[in-house]
Amino acid sequence: MINGKTTLIGHFGHPIEPVKAPMIYNPWFDKQGINAVVVPTGVKPEDYEAVMRSFFKFTNVRGALVTMPHKVTTVDLMDEVTPAVRISGACNAILLRPDGTLLGDQFDGSGFVRGIERKGLKLAGTRALVSGNGGVGSAIAASLAAAGVAELALYDGIDAASQALAGRLREHYPKLMVKTGSVDPAGYDLIVNATPLGMKEGDPLPFDISRIEPRTFVGEVVMKQAITPLLAAAQAKGCRIQVGTDMLFEMIPAYLEFFGFGTATPDELRAVAQISY
Amino acid sequence: MINGKTTLIGHFGHPIEPVKAPMIYNPWFDKQGINAVVVPTGVKPEDYEAVMRSFFKFTNVRGALVTMPHKVTTVDLMDEVTPAVRISGACNAILLRPDGTLLGDQFDGSGFVRGIERKGLKLAGTRALVSGNGGVGSAIAASLAAAGVAELALYDGIDAASQALAGRLREHYPKLMVKTGSVDPAGYDLIVNATPLGMKEGDPLPFDISRIEPRTFVGEVVMKQAITPLLAAAQAKGCRIQVGTDMLFEMIPAYLEFFGFGTATPDELRAVAQISY
Repeated sequence: MINGKTTLIGHFGHPIEPVKAPMIYNPWFDKQGINAVVVPTGVKPEDYEAVMRSFFKFTNVRGALVTMPHKVTTVDLMDEVTPAVRISGACNAILLRPDGTLLGDQFDGSGFVRGIERKGLKLAGTRALVSGNGGVGSAIAASLAAAGVAELALYDGIDAASQALAGRLREHYPKLMVKTGSVDPAGYDLIVNATPLGMKEGDPLPFDISRIEPRTFVGEVVMKQAITPLLAAAQAKGCRIQVGTDMLFEMIPAYLEFFGFGTATPDELRAVAQISY
Repeated sequence: MINGKTTLIGHFGHPIEPVKAPMIYNPWFDKQGINAVVVPTGVKPEDYEAVMRSFFKFTNVRGALVTMPHKVTTVDLMDEVTPAVRISGACNAILLRPDGTLLGDQFDGSGFVRGIERKGLKLAGTRALVSGNGGVGSAIAASLAAAGVAELALYDGIDAASQALAGRLREHYPKLMVKTGSVDPAGYDLIVNATPLGMKEGDPLPFDISRIEPRTFVGEVVMKQAITPLLAAAQAKGCRIQVGTDMLFEMIPAYLEFFGFGTATPDELRAVAQISY
């Protein structure tokens, strides 16, 4: 029950309608007796900097979640960012510190990787392809590199995004083989859709499904439905998959700790989450 | 349950902790299946203009409630205000219209007066004293004038506040007798505490209780507890009283209509409200 002592956590995104986090955090806060609430706060890119800064002037705000399309923009607006943010070039968590400064962190990538590894895919030495090199794709790529993949292929409709990410990865992981420019999924141990394709009906698939091998693990970031058209096609070929919300449930414990709300396990969070899949 | 399609109503105040509105509106929205939430948004006076304007850039915001100390400041920040705002010099409701402009309205006064009249005091021709001539006091004074009181005495620690309000009242109600400068409650049919006295333990009473007559009706705006020290003293003298939340429950239907959320009766709202008295 929200009251005057409730701590607010914003959730910056645009469009804001698809966000799922409030239906996970808020039931968890209820269950734990934590007087806090995640509030969806939709904001257009052109308004973002000013509106984000103003939001942290509210006296009962502690932090914010950041989702598309603001994760990259947020990096340069923070007073300090963690190494995970610097490498990925994206920020999905903001903490308002007692001195009024903003700390940016990043849990997309580690959430995605923890989910994959929990499903039994050992990432060390594998070959991975990440399509979509914006905020979430960059974060996943950074975490895959940290997890020891041998080869990382990057693809984005905006080639400059891939090139910039490739440069940052090569700088931090000199032994990693980084490739760009092709979205052909053949031959990879893991392919990841980190584009928004699958959010709208009629979207094309992010990969040529005829080129995906059954041994390939297929990860998804789109959370609009559990089994997106990509995942349905992958399952039909016998591939192992990871649904979009797995990344979410794996990263939430990190957010909870970051905001000072204790922690939880993904299973505990799934048990209380009020989402339809 | 808050989700990405939830409409936000802000609640601007400082300090924000004492606000009660979220515990009334939100259970009502739940009961009615209205996907909206009142979110307490504490904001300091020096930050208010910028933060208030930024808040309305969020794509899922429809409006805001305004409470102390922002009700007066808000008037000049609106694109348009209603006559109730112009007369009272205070604004407690903001609607973001589809064209992006802000409309300010004011329901404190009408809520207070409707509560008093529902309790059987016919205001026409009576003598009333309002102590505290800031936002809520001005609103109550304006509504008392509209309800036909014959004499209205105004008192505020800042005498200029009383003088300014007196001037606006005389302009709109030339036949009304308006007095300023005394807080002596003797001889009035109705006295109103519209100061914050009673919010903090150890506050002095807003009136000299020894001078209050049993026939005098005593109205309170402080909502920290139902029976404030003033109301306890008034009851001990046999006076009829109105508690702070009565004003609140009487005005909420007007707010609901203003925001486009239908309406409700005070009793329906009391039945769902999650407040401790």
